[in-house]
Formats: sequence, structure tokens, C-alpha cells
Amino acid sequence: MKRKGIISAVSGLAAGVLVAAVFFADFNKEEKASSAADNKSKAEKVYVPYGEYDDYYMLASGGHSGQLFVYGVPSMRKIRTVPVFTPDPATGYGYDENTKKMLGGYTWGDFHHPAVSETKGDYDGEFLFANDVGNNRVAAVDLSTFHTADIMSLPNMGGPHAGVFVTENTEYIALPTRFARPLGGKYAELDKYKEEYKGVVSMAKFDRDKKKFNLAYQIMLPPWSYDLSDAGKKMSGDWIVMTTYNTEFATTNLEINASQNDRDYIVLINWKKLEGEVAKGNYKEIEGVKMVDPRDYKGAIYAIPVSKSPHGVDVTPDGKRFIAAGKLAPLMTVFSFEKAFEAIEKEDYSDEKFGIPVLPYKKVMEREVDPPGALGPLHTQFDDKGNAYNTMFISSEVVKWKVDTGEVIDRKPSYFSPGHSSAAEGDTVDPDGKWLVALNKIAKDNFLSVGPSHPESMDLFDISGEEMEHIMAAPVDPEPHYAQIVHKDKIKPKKLYEKDEKRKNAVWSKEDAHIERKGNEVHVYGVALRSKFVFDAKSDRPDAVTVNQGDRVFFHMTNIDLDQDITHGFGINDYNLNFEVQPGQTNTLEFVADQAGTFPIYCTNFCSALHQEMSGYLLVKPKE
Amino acid sequence: MKRKGIISAVSGLAAGVLVAAVFFADFNKEEKASSAADNKSKAEKVYVPYGEYDDYYMLASGGHSGQLFVYGVPSMRKIRTVPVFTPDPATGYGYDENTKKMLGGYTWGDFHHPAVSETKGDYDGEFLFANDVGNNRVAAVDLSTFHTADIMSLPNMGGPHAGVFVTENTEYIALPTRFARPLGGKYAELDKYKEEYKGVVSMAKFDRDKKKFNLAYQIMLPPWSYDLSDAGKKMSGDWIVMTTYNTEFATTNLEINASQNDRDYIVLINWKKLEGEVAKGNYKEIEGVKMVDPRDYKGAIYAIPVSKSPHGVDVTPDGKRFIAAGKLAPLMTVFSFEKAFEAIEKEDYSDEKFGIPVLPYKKVMEREVDPPGALGPLHTQFDDKGNAYNTMFISSEVVKWKVDTGEVIDRKPSYFSPGHSSAAEGDTVDPDGKWLVALNKIAKDNFLSVGPSHPESMDLFDISGEEMEHIMAAPVDPEPHYAQIVHKDKIKPKKLYEKDEKRKNAVWSKEDAHIERKGNEVHVYGVALRSKFVFDAKSDRPDAVTVNQGDRVFFHMTNIDLDQDITHGFGINDYNLNFEVQPGQTNTLEFVADQAGTFPIYCTNFCSALHQEMSGYLLVKPKE
Repeated sequence: MKRKGIISAVSGLAAGVLVAAVFFADFNKEEKASSAADNKSKAEKVYVPYGEYDDYYMLASGGHSGQLFVYGVPSMRKIRTVPVFTPDPATGYGYDENTKKMLGGYTWGDFHHPAVSETKGDYDGEFLFANDVGNNRVAAVDLSTFHTADIMSLPNMGGPHAGVFVTENTEYIALPTRFARPLGGKYAELDKYKEEYKGVVSMAKFDRDKKKFNLAYQIMLPPWSYDLSDAGKKMSGDWIVMTTYNTEFATTNLEINASQNDRDYIVLINWKKLEGEVAKGNYKEIEGVKMVDPRDYKGAIYAIPVSKSPHGVDVTPDGKRFIAAGKLAPLMTVFSFEKAFEAIEKEDYSDEKFGIPVLPYKKVMEREVDPPGALGPLHTQFDDKGNAYNTMFISSEVVKWKVDTGEVIDRKPSYFSPGHSSAAEGDTVDPDGKWLVALNKIAKDNFLSVGPSHPESMDLFDISGEEMEHIMAAPVDPEPHYAQIVHKDKIKPKKLYEKDEKRKNAVWSKEDAHIERKGNEVHVYGVALRSKFVFDAKSDRPDAVTVNQGDRVFFHMTNIDLDQDITHGFGINDYNLNFEVQPGQTNTLEFVADQAGTFPIYCTNFCSALHQEMSGYLLVKPKE
Repeated sequence: MKRKGIISAVSGLAAGVLVAAVFFADFNKEEKASSAADNKSKAEKVYVPYGEYDDYYMLASGGHSGQLFVYGVPSMRKIRTVPVFTPDPATGYGYDENTKKMLGGYTWGDFHHPAVSETKGDYDGEFLFANDVGNNRVAAVDLSTFHTADIMSLPNMGGPHAGVFVTENTEYIALPTRFARPLGGKYAELDKYKEEYKGVVSMAKFDRDKKKFNLAYQIMLPPWSYDLSDAGKKMSGDWIVMTTYNTEFATTNLEINASQNDRDYIVLINWKKLEGEVAKGNYKEIEGVKMVDPRDYKGAIYAIPVSKSPHGVDVTPDGKRFIAAGKLAPLMTVFSFEKAFEAIEKEDYSDEKFGIPVLPYKKVMEREVDPPGALGPLHTQFDDKGNAYNTMFISSEVVKWKVDTGEVIDRKPSYFSPGHSSAAEGDTVDPDGKWLVALNKIAKDNFLSVGPSHPESMDLFDISGEEMEHIMAAPVDPEPHYAQIVHKDKIKPKKLYEKDEKRKNAVWSKEDAHIERKGNEVHVYGVALRSKFVFDAKSDRPDAVTVNQGDRVFFHMTNIDLDQDITHGFGINDYNLNFEVQPGQTNTLEFVADQAGTFPIYCTNFCSALHQEMSGYLLVKPKE
């Protein structure tokens, strides 16, 4: 079963990449030996008895769903889909006034890499940031409510794939572009690629009190593709590192043309330096954004050669090294920040590319780690004992090795084709060394079949011992590109939305529910409570609203059930409208009543034994 | 923890319903005694080792998400979200031409009760039918591909909540309305409720070859609310049974006003008889539908009094009895079809309501089952040993009892507030008696918190022994109203979409990819394969398409990777567009290129090690 999967995954590769199927036949034998006793012990590790909790939140990208997926680890149970970049009819996200405005008409997003806000290089659990590769946006999710707090569009970008990552005190949320594009997304022929197309990094700031983004500045780069990136820590805290591909400037058939060079580059940027230049007014305003060209400022940008088409680059927990994963080369390369700083200090350059000084590979590189037969390293995670973990896309395995020595300690198969992996607290200065989840791209025959296209798959490994142990596989909707695993004690969700007497449009008692009419606008100030709607306390039928065809109707609804998990929904039958109000929340639904007739209103979120009775009517009088 | 939840669930009830918190303190003690050894054994029961599969598909409604959720049982792992009533940006459902047309502009649905197609009263695993309470639709999902095959709008309905269920050979998919509404949804004052508002049952037929619905006829009923329903089996195969509430004709504050009568009704309808009348032309055409009033035809409709506001009514596997669950009364009532037929035969009526003959309760009722302290029975499921299982919403438990005698065999707590439950093959003539899942409405503090609103929760019970055993709790996105659990051998998914040389718009080789221009229409006949797009084989840049601003663009894409689970996505950066092509599938994306500029196109569904390189450009030349 497994071999077939590997072979077919490999069959799509360009010539020149070794085929590893034979090697992995060994893993199959080992796997079959896995005994019933092993399975019992594995089962116990992931079982969370009633009344107990998972130890970790796994906050995973929902990929081209545009949403955030919340899992519990180690049970791998999916707890919640949090809508971020895409409307969510189940909760009314994108339908109520606030979220409709925030989404700005977008119906699709492609959420790649979540990053939890950090303080001193450690997850602080307050916010989660997300990138939209599809439509060039960045979002912040408030982890006290698990609601999206803000979304900002990023001009000049061609898919901010290489983000998001945060600097160690969340000074910046950095988002490097994936595809080179003319600034402003303007039209330019592909023949003018080198001149007119640009790579851009967006440097966003987030105000935690106001819960608002601000695009501080952008960095203009060569029209290479930027794949992944990380922020420095401690000694390297002022720097960001990014991988590149297509340094060939190919404009077609990238499968072959962007895989010609033996080496692409890691780009190092000193964000602190550029911040200073921007403060001094050293920028151009392009498409309303402060744009800096780092080549104009000595010490702001460097490149280091790296094995071809790397995917991830990750800074070690101590901030001293960064590790590039080769993707199309079978190795991980360990670089030293100390050595890089030394070369920079001495102006010891081996080359210059597109105006960027290139640091000498051999002087900055500490070690190449090349486990035999391990193919397609994508990304590096860390534990608390100085070890690194690499998922291998092509050879479908996880490799554990010692950062200090390059010694390979363990290798375990993953089913199939792992993309990123995520370790418990694995991106922080202080990883936990407990669990690692490989986010596999292809499930094949791993689960009950759902037709020609399967779910993605996630493999849970216990990494607390010397040897890794594969514990379980969990299916997942497309597509968790990346995840962060955060200890449960770090996230402090609210139990309720506080009762705020001064909140705009809120009504806090049944008696105060009322309707205001202004011309052809109808404002309903209503309440939802178990088990009724009250729209107009003074009416004989307080749960019915009559309007005229063509009226603009606003339902301002407050959920006055101040009791955790008692959410009310509000659906209008035949009107294609639904939203929700969580306990203590006020939300507004606005629409034009263009369809005359009789329309039941009902609570769509099961709330009580009389939920079925929680209903009313919208009556729309036809135009004469 | 548990007690608090029960009390708060109860606190929302209307006066007159007993509070059961004291009674359930006992369950808490029992639960705490659950030992570590028990947990080990439970863990083993749900653990599915690598290389093995779950035994059952659980096909669950996704509630107000409008989608279908597919789970594996017993692992309770969610395998897939299948989009049905709502667009799904992750897969492009509602964005490509076919599905956009099928959705018809609707962006929200409220999927309540799935029903798998049946042959001789047993799931045949070919199709799944679903109702949209939000926007009055019925859908069919093809279980060979897990793709939605057809959606039909149902005029004259006010939310087909009480469906869907199928007759024993899927002759009909029946959908009774929940809210009374004037026919055609027309405007009518609530003062005219009794005269102008109607309850309606839609009787849909589905052509399995053409994969198309047809609305055969509708049944006009009194303006009661219809809650749930079932089809007869074997001896009762010609009949459908439905629960009612609001037989008070309340038009406001239903929480109180629709709970006044001690008895509501079970409605019995002979669908076979009505089918015959329709065939004879005995119908009125209303809003384009053949409408029958069953009161016009002797033997077509009867009512039976039942304890107030029942929720579910379920026909026993042998087809001899039907069981109503009280919801606001603390009991289950067993009725006999044989006795009902006898009363009908003798014209032994106790009353007439709204022109419907009422059968005498005491003569048709076999038994009332009233376990002490059990409150809020919602729905009945069955095993292979003649037992029934009822979820109790208010007392948060599952009660197992013998259908023949009414003897209560076991009671086990559920956390919290179970709605429906679903047993393995539990709606068929031949239930398996293995697993039962309680679909709980409120999770409270069951899982890691995600703010003021939590996921719903599902409790898995092992029902293979004399005593039920609670095995695990699984969180779930809102909101699985109902589910069917189908043995894995009954569903036969395709591995691939077959290569069909004659398929419209399909191109099966790279060399044949081409672009046709007709005025301002641009048709791209392209292919997706690992790891490239080919739009125009003859071009120097076969993966770039240049159009003029304002052109109507059609991307007809065929995935020529005939390899299971190799799906390609197709996203256009900054254009808010994404869709997918599964292996062997052809799909079309149509849009107007109203925005000029340079837009990267990329594969959004991870497909190979060179997935990142699978990209191209859409160039939109600005209008002069």
C-alpha cells in the first residue's frame, strides 16, 4: 500500500531527482511488525477520557478553504473551524455587517502559514496571524474569542506565501511574496519580467489594543520567488531569513526552468535597519505604501547560496543558526548567524546578485546534513534537547538529527508525502519536545474512501523519547499547510462577551426591544434569548416584523443569554440569510427586502428544548 | 461540571417541564468511578491502526453550514466535508460552471436530515439525500464520487425540516414543511393564519441514471408545524408518519403558545393512494406543482393524538410499529400499524381535526414508556435485538428499552443535551446493533475552549452488549442534526473519473491544449498535470494566457493525471477565483476579466514535489 503511494508521488517529479521506492521497502517490513501491544499503547496515548482535556491546541491553516482549523493534541480531534478569509454561512461570518465589511467582497482565500503572537520569542497566545496567498491579505484572529479581528489587503504583492512569521516581540508580521508581479499588479508583458516584475516583503504592524493592522513598510526585492521565511531570535533578533526559488527568472514551465540552477539563495534582511531608514523618510511611496529598496542601504540585505529550490528556512530556538531544507536537493544545510555576521563585518563577499552582496557559502555554512535516501526535506522543527526534525516529502519520512553535530538519530516513515511538520511549541525559543505532527499532502488509501479525491492526512508522532513513535493518522479537509502547536495554558479564551450597556445597537432586556423606521430604512433593535426572539416589545406579536417591499432592513440582535455556549442563530427562510449571536454579543444583519411575501424567521443554532419553537415571521408587503 | 450544564440547559425551558438535575447527580458518581482500566479498553475500541479502516461511514448533516460531514466510526475521525447547499471555496464548489448553476446564487443552506437511498428497506449506498430548511431545497449526493449531483428547489414550502426520509425502495424522497406559509410564499397577514397558511409535504422522485430530481406532487396539510417523519417498511410500506406541533395555530411566542395542548398529532398518509390519485389527474396545479389535498380522498390521511410537541417518530425495523418521542412530555409512545389499520378499516374515529379523521389513541397505542426522570426524548434508534434507544435532550442520557415489552434495560449519561442519535444501520430493516452516536447540541466545557461558543459534541456508545458503554466524545462543527451510519462495504466510491474522449470541453493530452477566441469570449481548453498547466501547446509560454480587459474568459480544465488522490487546484491570485479538478475530471471556470493587470495562476491543491512550480500567468491588457 505504502510503496505504491511513494512511487506515484515520485512519478510526478522532474528528471534528476532520485527515486527512493526501493529504500523504503525496508520501512514497510518494520511497519508490519507493529504488534497489537504497540497499538494498545498508542491508543492510550491519544485517548482523552471524559472530563479531561487535550494538552495542546493545534492551530492549523485551512489552506484554500481560507479558514483556521483548531485541533486538540494528542487526540487529533478537530474542535472548531474558525472563519478567517472566506465567508462562513454556518456562523454568519461575512453576512453580518462587521464581518461583511472586513471581508470586503472576497469569497475565497488561501491561508498558508499561521503564526501566534510572541513575546520574548515565546508564543503569548493572544493573537494568531494568517496570510492569504490567494488574494494578498493578512488577518489577525483574537484567541480570546477565536474570532477574526482584522484583515488588511497588501498591495504590490503576488501571494504572500513566504509568511507569516513574527519577530520575537511581534514588532512586525512579515509577509514575503511568492510570485513576482509588477508593482500595483499592473499589466506588463512577461518579456519585461526582469525589469518590471518585483518581489516584495510586506512588514505589517498590529496594534493589540485597537486590534488593527497597519502596513508599516514594504521591501522591494528581485523578481525571484520567495517560498518560506523565519525571524531571528535573541542574537539574530534584528534579522529575517527567506528562501528563494526561480532565481533563473523563468517565466514559463517553472517545473523545469526554475530548477536549472544548482544553487538558489537564502536572503537575509535586517528589518531593524530598514525600520530606521523608513523612520528617516528614506522610502518611496508606491501604491500608497512606503517602499524601501534594501540595496540602497549598506548592511540591510545579503544573500547566501543554498542547495536548489529550498522550501523552509528555520531559525534554531537559541537564535544562533538557521537551517535550510533543500526540497529538490536531498539535504539540510546548517548556517551560522555568527559566521554570517563575521563575513558581513569583513565585507567578505563571494559575488553580487541583482545588486545584493552574496556571502561565501563555505564560510557561513556550518554543515550539510544528508541522510542516505532521504529526499525532499521541506521544513525543520525543533525539540528541547537540541534536535531538529525534517519532514521529507518524497521519501515520506521524518528525520531526527542533532543540530550541533549533524548526527542522524532516528528516521520514521510518514504516510504519505509530508509537507510541513509542527512540533509542540516548535517555533519558540523553548520547544516542548513532546509531539510532532506531519502534515501530509496525500492520503491515498489511508482512510475510508470518499471518491477520487481524498482528505489530506496528519501523522502524530511522539517525540519525547530517543526514537520517534508514529502514533496515529488523522484525516483533515484541504489543506493544512502549516500549524502551530500551543500549550493549552497559554490561550485564555473568554467565557462570554461582556454585557456592555453602552454598546452601539445593543438592547439588554426584552422590554427594550423596539423598531425604528426612517423613510425606507427599518431598524429592528431585538434580543435573542432561550427560547424566543423579541423584536418589538410593544407589539401583539413581538416576534413578527412587517416591512414594505424594497425597504432596507437592519436586524440589530443581542444575545442576552449570558451563559457560555448558548449561541443563537437567526435564519430567514427563503431569504438566503443567516447569522449568529454568541452569548453577550450584538450583531447586525442588513439587507434589502426585495422579495415580497411571508418568511419564517428561526433560530438556527440549537439552544434549548424549545429551540424548535424559537421562531417568528418577516412579512414583506408587496409594492402596490 | 456536568450538573451545571444540565441545569443551564433546563433553565431555558417553559414552565411545566420537570427539572431533572437532582436525579442526575447519581450518574455523576458512576461516571467518576470510571477507572483507568476502563479508559484503556475504551481507547483500544476507537483506535484504528495504520493500514486498517473504520468499519462504518457516518454521514452527518453539517447543519447551518449547509454541507455534509463524513466521519469514520468507531474512530470518530472526520474524513471529509462534502459541499452540498453552500459554496465551498476550498474545492471550487459553487465557482465552476456546473456547481454554480446548481447552487443558483444561494450562499447559505441549513442541512438537517440525511437519508441514504434504500432498496428493500436497506441502505444501498448509492446516493444520499439532504434537505435545506433554510432555503427549501433538496439535494442528492452521489456516493460514488461524494459530489453533489442535483439540487431542486421546492415551492410552497416553509422549511422542509421534517424530511428527508425515503420510502423503502426510494420510490419517493419525502419532505414535510416545518413552518406554515401561504402557498407560493405569498404575503398574508398572520391574522389570516388558519385560512391562508398551509403545511405542505413535497414528494420528490430521483432518477438514478440521469441523477436528476423531479417533484412528483405535493400534499397540502393544515397549518401545523411538522417536525420529523419516517416511512413505513414492509407491511406499512405504503405509509408515511409525521409528528406535528403547534396544532394550537399559534402565530406568536410559540415557546408558550405552541405548548398549550396536552396532545398534538401523528399524521399518517398513504403515499401510494395519493400517487394513484395524481396519476388519475386528481390534483390542482399550484405554483407549477401538482398539489393534492388528501382530505379529498378517503383512506389517504389520518391523525392520532400523541403527547405534546413530539419530535421524532420512527418506524421499527420490522415495519409493525411506530414510536413517537415526546420532547415536552417525558415518554415514548409505541403505536401499532396493525391496530391503526384495524381502526381505519372499521372507520373507528374518535374525532375529526381540520377535516382529518382522528384514530382513537387508546386503540392504536400499544404502550407508553416512561422511565422515571427521563426528560425530553427526541428520537428513536434501533438495534438487531429488538431494542430501542432514545436520546433525552433534557436529562442528557440515552435510554435503552425493549420494544416488545417497554422494559427499560439501561440508561447512560450523554454530555450534554443530545439531539438525535444514530445507530449503525439504525434506520434500516436490519440494524447492526454495534455503535450509537448521540449528537449533542451543547459542548460546554467538554473540550479545549474556543471562546464563548463551542463546537457541538458527539458521544460514541458501544451498544453491542447488554449495557451500553460510553466510549468517547468528539467535537464537531455546527451542527449535526442527524446522521446515518452505513457499513463501509455498502459504499463503493470510484477511484478516478473515467477518461472519456467524448466529454464536452475535455482535452486529454498536453499537445491538444489550445485557446479559441470568439469576439470577446476566450475559451481556454487546458490540461493540469504534475506539475504544470498547459493552456496553449503552440505558445512559447504554454502556461500563460493573455486576454483583453472586459473579455469573458472560460478555463475548461481537464486533470489528466489518472492517479487516485492527485487533485489539482486552479487559483488566480488577486482575482478571487479558485476551483479544482479531480483526477480525470473536467471543470469550467467562467469569469469576466474586468480587472486589468498581471495575475499569477497557481495550483492550490498540493500535488507533487514541484507543486510550488505549478504556476502560470493571466495577463489582462488594459482597455485603451
